[in-house]
Amino acid sequence: MTQPHILITSGPTREYLDPVRYLSNGSSGKMGQALAVAALEKDLRVTVVSGPVSVEYPKEAAVHHVVTTKEMLAKCLEIFPDCSMVIGAAAPCDYRVKTVSPHKIKKHRGKPLQLELVETPDILARLGRRKQHQCLVAFALETENDEFYAAEKLRRKNCDYILLNHPSAIHSDETCLHMIDGTNHITATLQGSKSAVAVKILDILLVGA
Amino acid sequence: MTQPHILITSGPTREYLDPVRYLSNGSSGKMGQALAVAALEKDLRVTVVSGPVSVEYPKEAAVHHVVTTKEMLAKCLEIFPDCSMVIGAAAPCDYRVKTVSPHKIKKHRGKPLQLELVETPDILARLGRRKQHQCLVAFALETENDEFYAAEKLRRKNCDYILLNHPSAIHSDETCLHMIDGTNHITATLQGSKSAVAVKILDILLVGA
Repeated sequence: MTQPHILITSGPTREYLDPVRYLSNGSSGKMGQALAVAALEKDLRVTVVSGPVSVEYPKEAAVHHVVTTKEMLAKCLEIFPDCSMVIGAAAPCDYRVKTVSPHKIKKHRGKPLQLELVETPDILARLGRRKQHQCLVAFALETENDEFYAAEKLRRKNCDYILLNHPSAIHSDETCLHMIDGTNHITATLQGSKSAVAVKILDILLVGA
Repeated sequence: MTQPHILITSGPTREYLDPVRYLSNGSSGKMGQALAVAALEKDLRVTVVSGPVSVEYPKEAAVHHVVTTKEMLAKCLEIFPDCSMVIGAAAPCDYRVKTVSPHKIKKHRGKPLQLELVETPDILARLGRRKQHQCLVAFALETENDEFYAAEKLRRKNCDYILLNHPSAIHSDETCLHMIDGTNHITATLQGSKSAVAVKILDILLVGA
C-alpha cells in the first residue's frame, strides 16, 4: 500500500502594495506546524506549502515556501493530484491591490490614499473543484454569524470538513475549534494546545478515511 | 556623569483593517537589535520601542512592545525627554485605514473593495519638533531619487543624520547604507553585517556627540 500523502497549507500570505508595504495577517504557522508533526507521527507523507513564518517545520516534511496567495495556489494545484488529504491551515490574503506600485508609494502630505483591492483566488475552492478521491478540510475564522458562514464555506469550497475557530487562536499556542462535517453537523469540539488538537483532528480524519 | 540614554525604535508596526487583516512591511527588527547590542557595548543606557518581531533584544535593554504607529509614537514621546540620542530604525506604517471594521470584512463575491488610507503621525518628525539637546537619527528607505528624498527627510524631521538604505536590506542580515549629515553630505558609506554596521554608526555618533 502506498503511504497516504497529506498536503498542509500554513501561515499567512503577503500581498505587496509596493516594494515595501504589504497586506497580511497574524497567522503564525503554528497550527500548520502542529498538523505536520501529528501527520508524520501517523506515518503520512507530509507536504507543507507555507507563507512567511518564523516557526520551523519538521525536517521529514517536504516544505515549499511561497509569498503571495497566487503562488500558494499554484504550488497546491501542482501537488494536489498526488494527495489523499488536504488541510488548509494557512490564512492566505483574500485581497490584493489591483495595481502594485513598482516604487515605494510616497506620502501625499496629508491627503488620503485610495486603494482598490481585488479578490485573490480561493485556494480551497479551487482544489474543491478538482476534487476526486481527496478529503478536503478547510479552516474558517469568523468574528460573527460563524456557523452560518461555516456552512456556506463548506458548500462553496466543496469541503469534507470545516474547522471553525476564532481570531483569539491567531499566534496563540492554544486553540478551540468546532469540527463541522459535510452535513453541517458538529462532529467534535476540540480545545487545548495546537499540538493536542492537531492529533485529534487527524484521529477523526483517518478513522473517517 | 549620568549614563547617556539612547532610544532605538525597531521593527514594523501594524495597522489593522479588521480583527484579522493588517497593513505592515517586512522589517525584521534585526537592525534595531544590532544597534541595541552595539549601544550596550558602548555603555549607553538602552531603551527599545519595538513593533511585532521575532528577534530577541538584549536583556540589558528596556524593551517596550507596541503594535500600531500611534502606540509607538506615544511611547517614544514619553521616553524622549530623558534621552540624549534617538535612532529610528523602525519601519512604522505610514498609512492606516480611515475606518477599522469591528468585524472581519466579508468578501464581496468578486467585487473590488475600496480602502481609504490616511497618514499616521511621523514619529521622527514629531520628536524633531520637540528636540532640545538630543541627537536624532532617522533611517530612510527609498527605491528612487533616494538622495533627494533623504535631504527632504532630514529637513522635515529636523534630524542630525539620515541613514539611507535600500529595500534589499529588509529582513537581511547584511546592509549597505549612506550616513548623511545635517549639511546633506555623506559622512560615511557603511556596508557589511548589521552588527558591524551598527558599531560603526555608534562610533560616528559618539565621536560627534
